[in-house]
Amino acid sequence: MALPRSPAHRIASAPPGAFDGEVLVGGDEVERFRTDRSGYSPEGSPEAVVRARTVADVQRAVVHAREHRWTVVPRGAGTGLAGGAAAGAGSLVVDVSGLDRILEISADEAIAVVEPGVITARLDAAAEERGLRYAPDPASAAISTIGGNIATNAGGLRCVKYGVTGDAVLGLDVVLADGSLLHTGRRTVKGVAGLDLTSLFTGAEGTLGVIVGATLRLQPIPRKTITVAGWFDDVEQAATAVSAALAARVRPSLLELLDEPSVRRAEEHLGVGGARPGAFVVAQTDGFGAAEEAEVLADAFRLVTSRVRVGSDPHVAEELLAVRRAALPALETLGRPFIEDIALPRTRIAEATRRIATIAEHHDIPIFVFGHAGDGNLHPIIVAPSETREVLVRAEAAADEIFALALEFGGSITGEHGIGVLKRRWLARELGEDALRVQRSIRQALDPQGLFNRGKVW
Amino acid sequence: MALPRSPAHRIASAPPGAFDGEVLVGGDEVERFRTDRSGYSPEGSPEAVVRARTVADVQRAVVHAREHRWTVVPRGAGTGLAGGAAAGAGSLVVDVSGLDRILEISADEAIAVVEPGVITARLDAAAEERGLRYAPDPASAAISTIGGNIATNAGGLRCVKYGVTGDAVLGLDVVLADGSLLHTGRRTVKGVAGLDLTSLFTGAEGTLGVIVGATLRLQPIPRKTITVAGWFDDVEQAATAVSAALAARVRPSLLELLDEPSVRRAEEHLGVGGARPGAFVVAQTDGFGAAEEAEVLADAFRLVTSRVRVGSDPHVAEELLAVRRAALPALETLGRPFIEDIALPRTRIAEATRRIATIAEHHDIPIFVFGHAGDGNLHPIIVAPSETREVLVRAEAAADEIFALALEFGGSITGEHGIGVLKRRWLARELGEDALRVQRSIRQALDPQGLFNRGKVW
Repeated sequence: MALPRSPAHRIASAPPGAFDGEVLVGGDEVERFRTDRSGYSPEGSPEAVVRARTVADVQRAVVHAREHRWTVVPRGAGTGLAGGAAAGAGSLVVDVSGLDRILEISADEAIAVVEPGVITARLDAAAEERGLRYAPDPASAAISTIGGNIATNAGGLRCVKYGVTGDAVLGLDVVLADGSLLHTGRRTVKGVAGLDLTSLFTGAEGTLGVIVGATLRLQPIPRKTITVAGWFDDVEQAATAVSAALAARVRPSLLELLDEPSVRRAEEHLGVGGARPGAFVVAQTDGFGAAEEAEVLADAFRLVTSRVRVGSDPHVAEELLAVRRAALPALETLGRPFIEDIALPRTRIAEATRRIATIAEHHDIPIFVFGHAGDGNLHPIIVAPSETREVLVRAEAAADEIFALALEFGGSITGEHGIGVLKRRWLARELGEDALRVQRSIRQALDPQGLFNRGKVW
Repeated sequence: MALPRSPAHRIASAPPGAFDGEVLVGGDEVERFRTDRSGYSPEGSPEAVVRARTVADVQRAVVHAREHRWTVVPRGAGTGLAGGAAAGAGSLVVDVSGLDRILEISADEAIAVVEPGVITARLDAAAEERGLRYAPDPASAAISTIGGNIATNAGGLRCVKYGVTGDAVLGLDVVLADGSLLHTGRRTVKGVAGLDLTSLFTGAEGTLGVIVGATLRLQPIPRKTITVAGWFDDVEQAATAVSAALAARVRPSLLELLDEPSVRRAEEHLGVGGARPGAFVVAQTDGFGAAEEAEVLADAFRLVTSRVRVGSDPHVAEELLAVRRAALPALETLGRPFIEDIALPRTRIAEATRRIATIAEHHDIPIFVFGHAGDGNLHPIIVAPSETREVLVRAEAAADEIFALALEFGGSITGEHGIGVLKRRWLARELGEDALRVQRSIRQALDPQGLFNRGKVW
């Protein structure tokens, strides 16, 4: 293979010109790859960082890592919340954020073909120019990459109607442990030839290979979007309203809930509202029937509260959504937030929120609950006011009880963020040892040496 | 393990009372398990058929087959179209059609927990009593089982809006090659803990294990459903109308197309219409905006044809859908139909139909084309007027060219029926040898002896 020379590269143990992209070794530049948005850092620093410019770079890096018995840590924007991209001693980071081309948008076929480093919001904006959109919208869309979204099978606000990231992935290009390039899936919506490898690599958190390309499904932009917001005395009342709306066959395209402490803190942060404490629900309907559907939704809310707003204006929508968007930033000013991510049957939300309040009281640590009420994916945020050992122990004990609650309700310890390193010890409790053994056997088949993201997930 | 005795069983080499359900050995009763709706029959007859009454029966059968080095052929209703359930010499059929209990329907959580032998339409009817529905609706829904639908990841008419079978599967119970019972997934819509084994077993065509239980997502029944039908001069005109409708952001819940020969034959069969030849499109819209959306759809049709009907009455809907439903039965009277199942970008439908007409002419064999225009999944039906060797050779040559066409267009050789035995030799051409090797390694990891459905798919 002829290896083109790169004007700007620094060489680890690789021969000069071995990579098209830059190679970082040692120093401060490497240090930042030790962690991601989870805040978790392992022991030591990565041996090197390959800033891939080409798919061949990724393949060379994988071969190089295998020769050195390093683990490969794939990385996009490093916005993961479970530590999946954190890299320590003995690791080679393969940074694919520079593989950021949108290779194709076909309005006719309603698909996009992209490299993994494309920022999610950028793809959505590019699709919008063609009258389409990329439906999955994780809260991190403005800063996270498509590759990272796929690796974690990220959710988002719109997924209550349009599905999670995996529902939009039609095909993948993946560099495997032997350095070969695998193509999975197809350009068409349907297709059942062979095993569904696309779904297997989606959400595998970089433990089976490095995603270097994706064919994605786009959606038409809905004709209308209407926003409905309701303020309720408490989460029980809010949950009653949500159930009534769903029983009336409303299919919201967004349905978010904030508990009382989250609303209070978010409104303080924004310098708005705050007249009466309570829980907050913001929802959207879209498509041809959006207006009528929004009225049914609002009527369901009005069964239990008089404080309802309905708006079709995008500015009103932004204003109503602002409280939801401010929830996490507002908490970050109070201390270190531990962002949990449980999935529950949506019918158990009020009960779960009440139980979590008890857990907060019992461990004497603030916990705020908000999230995706439409699909039962809640984010309890444990805020550690300081990072003393004693406080962190209490935070962890509270998190343990929250995970146990999710499993008790038949749910999951992670709805959309992934296992990474932070939830590893909980994985067996959710899956059971038998299922874990089956998962490990698949990992073993695809990556016998455990080259990819060693020590993550499993 | 205490093995309860069954009053009605016949014994193969298993000890008396080894199974709760009946065991068939030899004779006519076993013969019918040699084939399925594909018409394909392998050499010889199955060694035995275990009509499982319990999950433990399936586990015992798997262990028993392994001891005898037989292959396990899982079977539901035997309605598969690719030969996946056809069983020959050296096989033990595990018939799960008797595992047919709907264990739970939760209207609140909008889920159903079922055994694999439940007939799909029966689940849908049971859901309807609770104001919900099971959205995937393969044409075989009245006779096929949920387990078979999952094993093939079956599509259907509504999947253009609501997704295929796999999109409705939240979790599975699967008996593995060592006889152990694996639980995958969860009861919640979201959840990303570990690899997505649910999707891996869905569509695996019984080659990785026997599905013995499923947790399924249900949907609210839409408030309204409107049917729109259009008669067009030819498929090109029909395709133009469909494109115009989709560009107007219509999201149909059903969008079916029949080419000229299919329409003519179906109308003859029904004894209706036939005044003017042409292509036929029938569509539905549903939900709050169904009426407005149907009007936009009808207007798009009216851009190219004056022959448009719109109806909200269920009887009108049935009348308009009747032509689509009659298409296959109408052809079965002409000879032996070979039902192909290609997936294409939906923008290539007119071109593909024209090319298929040329293939039909070239091989001097009738081919009728209809299918799911909304997602580009076409069923070209090659009708062999007789089953002489010469005719079958021509039919096969035509099928070969149709598969090549699908791959040329970036599509798939099977949109919803599966590989089974009939498309095995085409699988490598679609996936490539590298991807096939990866698929085999996963199969090897889960079923090292190739116990399940040996000779199918791979």
